[in-house]
Amino acid sequence: MTAGGTGVARIRCDQLAPVLGDLEGNGRSILAAVEQAVADRVDVLVLPELATTGYVFRDADEAATVAVTADDPLFARVAGALDGTDTVVVVGFCERDGRLLRNSVAVVDRTGVRTVYRKTHLWDRETLVFTPGDAAPPVVDTAHGRIGVLVCYDMEFPEMPRMLALAGADLIAVPTNWPVGDHPERDRVAEVIAAQAAARTNGVFIACCDRAGTERGQDWNEASVIVDQFGWVAAETEVGAGATAITVDVFPALARDKSTSPHNDWIGDRRPELYDRKVPTA
Amino acid sequence: MTAGGTGVARIRCDQLAPVLGDLEGNGRSILAAVEQAVADRVDVLVLPELATTGYVFRDADEAATVAVTADDPLFARVAGALDGTDTVVVVGFCERDGRLLRNSVAVVDRTGVRTVYRKTHLWDRETLVFTPGDAAPPVVDTAHGRIGVLVCYDMEFPEMPRMLALAGADLIAVPTNWPVGDHPERDRVAEVIAAQAAARTNGVFIACCDRAGTERGQDWNEASVIVDQFGWVAAETEVGAGATAITVDVFPALARDKSTSPHNDWIGDRRPELYDRKVPTA
Repeated sequence: MTAGGTGVARIRCDQLAPVLGDLEGNGRSILAAVEQAVADRVDVLVLPELATTGYVFRDADEAATVAVTADDPLFARVAGALDGTDTVVVVGFCERDGRLLRNSVAVVDRTGVRTVYRKTHLWDRETLVFTPGDAAPPVVDTAHGRIGVLVCYDMEFPEMPRMLALAGADLIAVPTNWPVGDHPERDRVAEVIAAQAAARTNGVFIACCDRAGTERGQDWNEASVIVDQFGWVAAETEVGAGATAITVDVFPALARDKSTSPHNDWIGDRRPELYDRKVPTA
Repeated sequence: MTAGGTGVARIRCDQLAPVLGDLEGNGRSILAAVEQAVADRVDVLVLPELATTGYVFRDADEAATVAVTADDPLFARVAGALDGTDTVVVVGFCERDGRLLRNSVAVVDRTGVRTVYRKTHLWDRETLVFTPGDAAPPVVDTAHGRIGVLVCYDMEFPEMPRMLALAGADLIAVPTNWPVGDHPERDRVAEVIAAQAAARTNGVFIACCDRAGTERGQDWNEASVIVDQFGWVAAETEVGAGATAITVDVFPALARDKSTSPHNDWIGDRRPELYDRKVPTA
């Protein structure tokens, strides 16, 4: 535990292009991204969902062949690359959990894996491959602020960013694989709008790292975004930019001030005693 | 109670410009808007927050001079104007509740006032004038779908649209007075982004009726918007358009299908057993 996170933090989302099933090649891409982040003095590096394996598995059997545990040497190599730094890496991986498969995220620093979170809201055919997690998402106290973790579709349930904000998260890191979707030209992609609303209503920073690389015909929004505590976009890829990184310096501790007027506060103004009450009908 | 709401419904937000303290003039504007809506075969008319009185009260004493009860003849006149129709009007008013003042909304049809909702989340200096409501927001079953009601700042607490969606709301009507705020040119105003995210994650329609008319130096977004069940804008004013109305035909019952993939459903995918759990820290 540290009392850190009151200074500036350089946040990066590195929108990699994992190759389906290429555990070794994807591991090299992850390590290269970590080394580049260290070279660029990045403090918090967010990488995509399932960055170790890719996403479009035919079935659980195929996924099982590339699932790893949190003891996998890859994470020790990431920790080794962070030696001498306070940098934190948030990376999605296909996890073997006994006989189950999980869509998981590891938070890694120079000491090793700080925590693993298992995605609790599974999207579409993920339900045929993975078992959803049964634990609440974590908040990790780091030298660069308190980092909450969600995975992709989790974020679109407003209860999830809310519970992380209530637990004191300054920044929510969201490894994602956003399947490409239609949207009006005037609007950003729907998932970014969800991130903006979640950041604003909770007064937190949110960093969503999407992915690139067509996989079995599936394309992605390629719309990584870092949203500030007011819900405005601090850094973003150009949609469809391919494998690219976005980086921005922010003060995560600004998320600890939830006041919005002399009389208002995003958290203090909640009415939790009402939210479970029965809705009257007329 | 009706089993209605499976057909098309014409929704209108009429972005009036109330004049502070002019109960009689504002009443005339409200009635004119209702009569125009009936002439235009509008099914659901949403009017601004505090449409009877304006917003920028100096203090509670000033507001008390123009506060009315739900028995006020204005609402009977609105009901009278709806005679022979199934049209529903959702209108904000400054309510006298014994010795208290409330920032309230009446839902009115040809039978009279169906329900009154008292704003539960007060913004800024409203806290010096009004007492917040202690009841959950209602859902009103109408011939044009199940209409939930929120007021302005209420909507920015995601628990509120969520509880209305869980109670079966098809359309959430939100009388608002949105004080003008800065936003990046690329983005819509922040409150509209909140409405888009709330509509999408709950699979409901949302109609926010903002207001026009500078009041004691205060300007408004003038950004009324009707959002579809996917979170996209179906109708909107041009920001700063002044007093104007937006109208669109939708099928509110489409909100009853929450499926988003062969394996997903906005409501069914919730994990309520997790949302109150303690967040682990590392």
